[in-house]
Amino acid sequence: MTPEQRARDFDAADPLAGYRERFTLPAGVIYLDGNSLGALPRATPAVLARVVEQEWGEGLIRSWNAAGWFDMARRIGGRIAPLIGAAPHEVIACDSTSVNLFKLIAAALEMRPGRKVVLSEPGNFPTDLYMIAGLETQGLATRRLAERERLAEALDSDVALLMLTHVHYKTGALHDMAALTRAAHAAGALVLWDLSHSAGALPVDLAAAGADLAVGCGYKYLCGGPGAPAFAFVAERHHAALQQPLTGWFGHSAPFAFSDDYAPAPGIDRLQCGTPPVLGLAALEAGVGLIAEIGIARLHAKSQALSEFFLESLMAHDVALELVSPPCASERGSQLAFRHPNAYAVCQALIARGVIGDFRDPDVLRLGFAPAYLGFADMAGAARHMAEVLARGEWQRAEFNQRAAVT
Amino acid sequence: MTPEQRARDFDAADPLAGYRERFTLPAGVIYLDGNSLGALPRATPAVLARVVEQEWGEGLIRSWNAAGWFDMARRIGGRIAPLIGAAPHEVIACDSTSVNLFKLIAAALEMRPGRKVVLSEPGNFPTDLYMIAGLETQGLATRRLAERERLAEALDSDVALLMLTHVHYKTGALHDMAALTRAAHAAGALVLWDLSHSAGALPVDLAAAGADLAVGCGYKYLCGGPGAPAFAFVAERHHAALQQPLTGWFGHSAPFAFSDDYAPAPGIDRLQCGTPPVLGLAALEAGVGLIAEIGIARLHAKSQALSEFFLESLMAHDVALELVSPPCASERGSQLAFRHPNAYAVCQALIARGVIGDFRDPDVLRLGFAPAYLGFADMAGAARHMAEVLARGEWQRAEFNQRAAVT
Repeated sequence: MTPEQRARDFDAADPLAGYRERFTLPAGVIYLDGNSLGALPRATPAVLARVVEQEWGEGLIRSWNAAGWFDMARRIGGRIAPLIGAAPHEVIACDSTSVNLFKLIAAALEMRPGRKVVLSEPGNFPTDLYMIAGLETQGLATRRLAERERLAEALDSDVALLMLTHVHYKTGALHDMAALTRAAHAAGALVLWDLSHSAGALPVDLAAAGADLAVGCGYKYLCGGPGAPAFAFVAERHHAALQQPLTGWFGHSAPFAFSDDYAPAPGIDRLQCGTPPVLGLAALEAGVGLIAEIGIARLHAKSQALSEFFLESLMAHDVALELVSPPCASERGSQLAFRHPNAYAVCQALIARGVIGDFRDPDVLRLGFAPAYLGFADMAGAARHMAEVLARGEWQRAEFNQRAAVT
Repeated sequence: MTPEQRARDFDAADPLAGYRERFTLPAGVIYLDGNSLGALPRATPAVLARVVEQEWGEGLIRSWNAAGWFDMARRIGGRIAPLIGAAPHEVIACDSTSVNLFKLIAAALEMRPGRKVVLSEPGNFPTDLYMIAGLETQGLATRRLAERERLAEALDSDVALLMLTHVHYKTGALHDMAALTRAAHAAGALVLWDLSHSAGALPVDLAAAGADLAVGCGYKYLCGGPGAPAFAFVAERHHAALQQPLTGWFGHSAPFAFSDDYAPAPGIDRLQCGTPPVLGLAALEAGVGLIAEIGIARLHAKSQALSEFFLESLMAHDVALELVSPPCASERGSQLAFRHPNAYAVCQALIARGVIGDFRDPDVLRLGFAPAYLGFADMAGAARHMAEVLARGEWQRAEFNQRAAVT
């Protein structure tokens, strides 16, 4: 059987197949970049139109109360919580992942006086490393990087915080959240997990792992739209002590008392800073609602089946590409990364054929498998395109075009 | 002539009268809260629908380049610039006002080593004062507050930054931007102006004043929608030295090189932090475009005429209310604040009649006069409602309802 024939059987048996209709996807495209920007839920335009035309246009300032704008950050946090193994009051949707990283790194340093080291790994997502750098220039943090197999031994009594991305943005490799959290706690450090490539794609259990802090992205698997608000998690046991430096009025215990002095709101609300971005939050809520409706266990099972089938399909076409991701599906997120000396050109050649993946410097082709809206036929099609691009040397033409454009 | 009769003449002669049709306003409402949340431009829903359905839904990740998402923050900053007397490359639209305050206060402290004091006034908008507090808990700043008439003498050699809101959020009182900037510079301090209640309502000339830094709000007179992205200004002469602690990947000189080490982008881009909020920016761009089209000089002239006519109309009804705002239009922003011992109840009684203003603790009724979409008939109507609410004691009923609801 060809991959296309097998895909038909798989798609017919797929309990999530119907959800594809709940998303808008352009014709002629196989979208393998949902780990960068998730697709548009079909319900989102109407949600936004209602928020804009009725809540903003008609309700005006009254909508802060009448339309529940005041509660959006907490309400959406509460809907994200079950996807990541948190209690509803431990999660809030606000600001960007980067800004939330800053708040939580700073808060961790406050909770571990006398310790200044923030430990992470080289090659972690850039903004994670850069936000440590920001606190370093303030004189408040010292960045320490250790390769993942050496993290445990780098955990000494200077470490205030171990900060890692659960699913590596490039390779998709998974960290053992529970084991690393235990190791950090044994060394007296706190742990901050970046769930940007996890939330909405695979089960995360922050509570079981004993995690302290987490952040994550709203515009990847949660389908919240370009530049969607991010989320932040703080375990309830840290709420009372939590002190973060972005002490804006929406994190105040009584914002409308207009007092000159800051007093943090009780609980997770103290992570809020400025006025919540209502339009972005509304789109995020629609995305989160749909992902939660599908259910994370089913999404995870399909994600694994998709990537396995994609690898099988490549083999059926005798495509031999160096796999950078862990070969075992249980050890990776919902993506596959391949190394190719001309990865950029290969990526461009695939895009010219309607297969949208992305390139990550210097030589990685990254393909994401968002299980909510992709099918097995997409996998078979993408594998065939990949085989043809490589066999026909199409990437050489793409590379020529690129060089011609640059020079 | 009654105020209503005079209003008809004024509206007939108003060159901006036609712009009201460019906004969506609910029937039966006189909206005097555009200084809190600006009205919806009629063009915005279609702009958002295009960005959502075409750019996100069809373009997907390709829209970062193809639809210009990468440039939005700078492009919109460039459109705000002429409204505030800045060059296009000195302004960027990003994050919230609060977050931008944090960046720029921290940057100012870096530029004035050995000085830790941030000077402001008591009763400044809360988030401004709170963001100093955040840096205070980090041990990096010391907050000093001085009443506005004592600011000059509080400017000593410990002061790194003078930070003020140009138009006071409650009273509408204007600071003398040029004089205070000169005084701060003479003391060796930098100046940060919060233009939240200025931008889009009255002319601001940051360049002429020699201002160093500024921030402002996108959702008031700029009509960018609830929780719209804010903006930040840095005078070109400070660009090279500017170092701010929220060093996210969008402020990096080469974000897609995915380097482990942070290197700030040249120029204003280094104020960016996380991934830009595309939906919020799209709505902001529509609002800014409309305000820029009307033109700040015409908006200012009408703003002054509106508030003057409102005061005259109150007098015509023999309403004697204590005015908290400066009585001279040239000394205030586009709003009027009145003191009343039952201000909250008066505000509720007005809202019940469709006149939407707002209450500011403890006893201030604040009415904003957004000149882009209000007319003189609105002023006459609001004044008549106010006279009736006070004459008939309607506020007592509103107060009773409030107490009944609370107890």
